[in-house]
Amino acid sequence: MPHPSSLEFFWDPASPYTYLAATRIETLAEEAGIALNWRPFLLGGVFKATGNRAPAEVAAKGRYLFEDLQRWASLYGVPLRFPESFPANSIQALRAALVAEESGQGPAFARAVMAAHWGEGRDINNPAVLAEVAEGAGLSADAVAQQMQSQEIKDRLRANTDEAVARGAFGAPTFFVGDVMFWGNDRVPLLKAYLQES
Amino acid sequence: MPHPSSLEFFWDPASPYTYLAATRIETLAEEAGIALNWRPFLLGGVFKATGNRAPAEVAAKGRYLFEDLQRWASLYGVPLRFPESFPANSIQALRAALVAEESGQGPAFARAVMAAHWGEGRDINNPAVLAEVAEGAGLSADAVAQQMQSQEIKDRLRANTDEAVARGAFGAPTFFVGDVMFWGNDRVPLLKAYLQES
Repeated sequence: MPHPSSLEFFWDPASPYTYLAATRIETLAEEAGIALNWRPFLLGGVFKATGNRAPAEVAAKGRYLFEDLQRWASLYGVPLRFPESFPANSIQALRAALVAEESGQGPAFARAVMAAHWGEGRDINNPAVLAEVAEGAGLSADAVAQQMQSQEIKDRLRANTDEAVARGAFGAPTFFVGDVMFWGNDRVPLLKAYLQES
Repeated sequence: MPHPSSLEFFWDPASPYTYLAATRIETLAEEAGIALNWRPFLLGGVFKATGNRAPAEVAAKGRYLFEDLQRWASLYGVPLRFPESFPANSIQALRAALVAEESGQGPAFARAVMAAHWGEGRDINNPAVLAEVAEGAGLSADAVAQQMQSQEIKDRLRANTDEAVARGAFGAPTFFVGDVMFWGNDRVPLLKAYLQES
């Protein structure tokens, strides 16, 4: 098998497990010597297309979710503050992420928006929060706010989402190494083992 | 916190992730110095009570499931043969497990029935297979076949299932250390960390 050229990371800041995985994936990619490709996609669109649903839609799972997330955050040594705005509408944040991508600030924006939402519990559907995140990632908040409303950006988010579904995704985070898919923060160890073997 | 006296392991042989976890949990409990309490329960009943559903009910998840299971089996170094009878009706096997429990053969039967189903791909709803599993676990197949039809055994399986749901379970495997719940083969590392700390 030829060594794959990149590790694709489909992320949506609405997903807490994506936040957790994001705190680990850069080091993992670096250690494996593989480029990390951050790909914003809309988890809500994935659920709609596949018939899958968010864990919190099952009441007992939702009750467990909070405890489980705290355990992972504590294991990883990262902050976790459950946002009052959960479940978030992440479409504006994702469009902003695609704008950030154009100037090479995609990863910085992704990190910042997930840290704001899951590390600090902030509402990422609030334009003021998004503006602050954009500035923090080295972008002009005004320029982002304007460009993210373009049809091209909207189409690109939809295309990323459709592509992930077509390739087999049904949740987040989803990782691809070529055609090989891994789903979930809890599969990061399997992904790591795969990259070490290939 | 007082040291909990046992680690409860709610298991159903219909669940492949329960099989995987079962191959690891005895060593884990031994190393943590905690007694392991095997508790048969009916996953189908849990799904019905909680509104949760099996992964394979989402088509894309079902496609991924097979690959994911192979990865875990290979990581753990255990055999995996996907049964043609999937998804299994496990109610007879679970009732037999409760009969086995009465003579102290609960764990031996649990191990054997999961190995037959997931390690060898055999149909555990087939009475001949169940008989063989019972004999392999040191039981009289005829006695098991008779006792497992008693109302008491049927009630006990229902009681275990209801109890798990009342305590927060929504899937399998489910582990309890006192009131603290862990769900899934993929949470075995979190369970291990918890036992080491407590």
